[in-house]
Amino acid sequence: MNLDTYLVTAERLSEDRSTVEIVESAIDGGIDLVQLREKEMPARDRYDLGQELRELTRAAGVPLIVNDRIGLAAAIDADGVHLGDEDLPIAVAREQLGEAAIVGRSVSTAEAAREAERAGADYLGVGAVYPTDSKDTNPEGTEIGLDRIEAVAEAVEIPIVGIGGVKPDNAAAVIGAGADGVAVISAITAADDPAAATRELGAAVERGRESR
Amino acid sequence: MNLDTYLVTAERLSEDRSTVEIVESAIDGGIDLVQLREKEMPARDRYDLGQELRELTRAAGVPLIVNDRIGLAAAIDADGVHLGDEDLPIAVAREQLGEAAIVGRSVSTAEAAREAERAGADYLGVGAVYPTDSKDTNPEGTEIGLDRIEAVAEAVEIPIVGIGGVKPDNAAAVIGAGADGVAVISAITAADDPAAATRELGAAVERGRESR
Ligand code: NI
Repeated sequence: MNLDTYLVTAERLSEDRSTVEIVESAIDGGIDLVQLREKEMPARDRYDLGQELRELTRAAGVPLIVNDRIGLAAAIDADGVHLGDEDLPIAVAREQLGEAAIVGRSVSTAEAAREAERAGADYLGVGAVYPTDSKDTNPEGTEIGLDRIEAVAEAVEIPIVGIGGVKPDNAAAVIGAGADGVAVISAITAADDPAAATRELGAAVERGRESR
Repeated sequence: MNLDTYLVTAERLSEDRSTVEIVESAIDGGIDLVQLREKEMPARDRYDLGQELRELTRAAGVPLIVNDRIGLAAAIDADGVHLGDEDLPIAVAREQLGEAAIVGRSVSTAEAAREAERAGADYLGVGAVYPTDSKDTNPEGTEIGLDRIEAVAEAVEIPIVGIGGVKPDNAAAVIGAGADGVAVISAITAADDPAAATRELGAAVERGRESR
């Protein structure tokens, strides 16, 4: 599982472009994983969109993860699901989606990270690293910073991705602090050129890894 | 499948009593089916509540249906799922939950009823029959009335339950118009004595059936 660059979709932050367009561009730019989020979208629309993204990502060999909804993940044959504090437990996702499914979990502390690892998470989304306007990636409205990324990376064996306010120009530092990858919404969805933004992000991750 | 009296849960409309208490009382009063709705509740809390309701309803031999979420329905081993216009398609629920699952669908017109029947729905929730404050049962803010219940009942072979503003004192008329049962939220959840309210509702359904 390559988590270097991880796109979380949000049509409402995509500057009047569709999520399908954004994902196509991100794939062109070498995105490593796509998470279908679209919290505002009715389940039915997310299902339709999910089927389109499944085709695109499968053709490109890119894993597709669904935010929150296990039933939706199963329905579109996604590769897995990403769960938050208020979502169904990891064990339920594992039981419903099978051993091969990728199950991710959002955490913001080392303690929660250890707990999620014990519960069977395959990777962790950790944030918000930096200040961000997106409530989705920063429910508490406060950023955790690079020290916390380092603490979480030391606390667990499973890979972690930093999320929240990450951009090409600060991504290397997130990796330098111990993250295995970076997850972004608007750094790609709202970019003038989402493919170029994805490439820049991937290059920053490489630089961060070399700097360690 | 007996749909005479159908309870849709809503803790926020339960006058400071828990949904578990309300369901216990409704079971005492002879409720025929329970739908776990709780739209405001995070999935994790609905999962915990759903496990409790599953125990209660299983012990009582009462079917338990989950609103909207197929993954949650599977996770708590519910008997089925109830879907609206914005939820996943009936075919997806069928595929995920199996042939034996009860799949219900909300409709408000005869045309939508026929379509849902063709798509494989096991029963239909039809409303809002009467004016109601609950947005859940009356998304359009207008009631469809008894004539529409009659038209939908004539349009399909599968059972239909009238929902929206139904109470013990108007339930017989809903059945008289052709419904097979009545679904309620606050007529039970907000009643001083939810068990008594359930019994009154059941008696009204009987009267309505005898009057046909
Ligand atoms: Ni690590």
